[in-house]
Amino acid sequence: MGLHLTSEQRLDDGVLERAFTLGEIPGVLWTPASASASAPAPAPLILLGHPPLGLDRMYPRLVARARHAAADGFAAATIELPGSGDRPRWAAAEQARAELRRVMEAGEPVSDEIVDALVLPLVDKAVPEWQAALDALLPLPGIGGPVGYSGGVISIGVRLAVVEPRIVAASLFAGSFVPRVMFEEARQVTIPLHVLLQWDDEGNDRQAALDLFDAFGSREKTLHATMGGHTGVPQFAGDAAAQFFVRHLK
Amino acid sequence: MGLHLTSEQRLDDGVLERAFTLGEIPGVLWTPASASASAPAPAPLILLGHPPLGLDRMYPRLVARARHAAADGFAAATIELPGSGDRPRWAAAEQARAELRRVMEAGEPVSDEIVDALVLPLVDKAVPEWQAALDALLPLPGIGGPVGYSGGVISIGVRLAVVEPRIVAASLFAGSFVPRVMFEEARQVTIPLHVLLQWDDEGNDRQAALDLFDAFGSREKTLHATMGGHTGVPQFAGDAAAQFFVRHLK
Repeated sequence: MGLHLTSEQRLDDGVLERAFTLGEIPGVLWTPASASASAPAPAPLILLGHPPLGLDRMYPRLVARARHAAADGFAAATIELPGSGDRPRWAAAEQARAELRRVMEAGEPVSDEIVDALVLPLVDKAVPEWQAALDALLPLPGIGGPVGYSGGVISIGVRLAVVEPRIVAASLFAGSFVPRVMFEEARQVTIPLHVLLQWDDEGNDRQAALDLFDAFGSREKTLHATMGGHTGVPQFAGDAAAQFFVRHLK
Repeated sequence: MGLHLTSEQRLDDGVLERAFTLGEIPGVLWTPASASASAPAPAPLILLGHPPLGLDRMYPRLVARARHAAADGFAAATIELPGSGDRPRWAAAEQARAELRRVMEAGEPVSDEIVDALVLPLVDKAVPEWQAALDALLPLPGIGGPVGYSGGVISIGVRLAVVEPRIVAASLFAGSFVPRVMFEEARQVTIPLHVLLQWDDEGNDRQAALDLFDAFGSREKTLHATMGGHTGVPQFAGDAAAQFFVRHLK
């Protein structure tokens, strides 16, 4: 898939923000101010994961994370998830979302079948796209390895950590439904992990998050649990994740 | 109880280390190099908790923690625990320790009775001593508030966090037996907490540590779980605890 830069702007802190398309997939690339100076060292790249709510809606939080990464000397990039934003929906995913809404409104437990239908096709479709994004972004001037993956749908992060050797460290957000099969994949993860858990996340199964953390095969893994709901991640927790990448990507 | 400074030495990084006695209790005070310059701002104080193994045996780890604190601009102090080091043993504690050794060697579960006998008298005796140490240390030139408590027997930290208003933040190490009654006290804790858990600590009950974290009444509490055994706390976990105090004591 070819990468086309579609627009660019310089943010007030000097970060260069470039919108791109990768085939049909929209994305955004941020590079630190220093990366555009003459003959700089290439910046390590952090892939910014996000929930399937559409890039436009997630933009404010994504650009804040990208600025933080740039301040640490990293490039950052993200792409639209399949079935989100302007990308075509597919029937099975829409059906799984509708079924999830129905059982949650009815106060029924969310079955393994619903979680599998909701998450597994998304992982299967998204992971090769993030790998294609790496293929396209890493050759750009000013960007280099190693690569980190941060946040978003945790099952996408787990699969990427298993199948993509260019990703050497991942900061995962334990805040979404996890299909049972992902616990098996988690055992195959060996890269350093920083796992963020919002202890009182109303949309999260805390015990499942602890079990998933326990399952990871990585020798270095840190669980960082803080108080607050799904979107209430405190500033210092973001700082801790940033320090994790400084330790592992520099 | 009167404070008597018994010796002092300047460490190579400029930290002033002073041994003292508080009544019969030996202790050590470390102050940052800058605290001895003319008219400096008084340094916040971090109380360094430790397991009941004797100050002499714990000294290498304590001085490393004190140097780290001093580099952040903090004074640090510790005192010998009752029944440790050269301090008089008491029969009930010796009996509880012997009983603990017996059941652990026999592979039997450690009963609530043993844990209570081991920990509660230690907490009851130690906490007023740490408070007396605060009374004696805070008036010294170059030392001021606020006060943090760090590490050691977690039940001592919990009780101090409840009863001692001069302590405004605590970094606790979830690595020791916790009497059931301490879970009730934990609900009364409201100061910011940073809780360190070694996920694979062979001497620790992980579920009890998670339950205790859940019980704390503090609005700001962070669980920081890392891999490794009881003494294998990685450098970056120590750094995270240090940053917690920088956020709360400065």
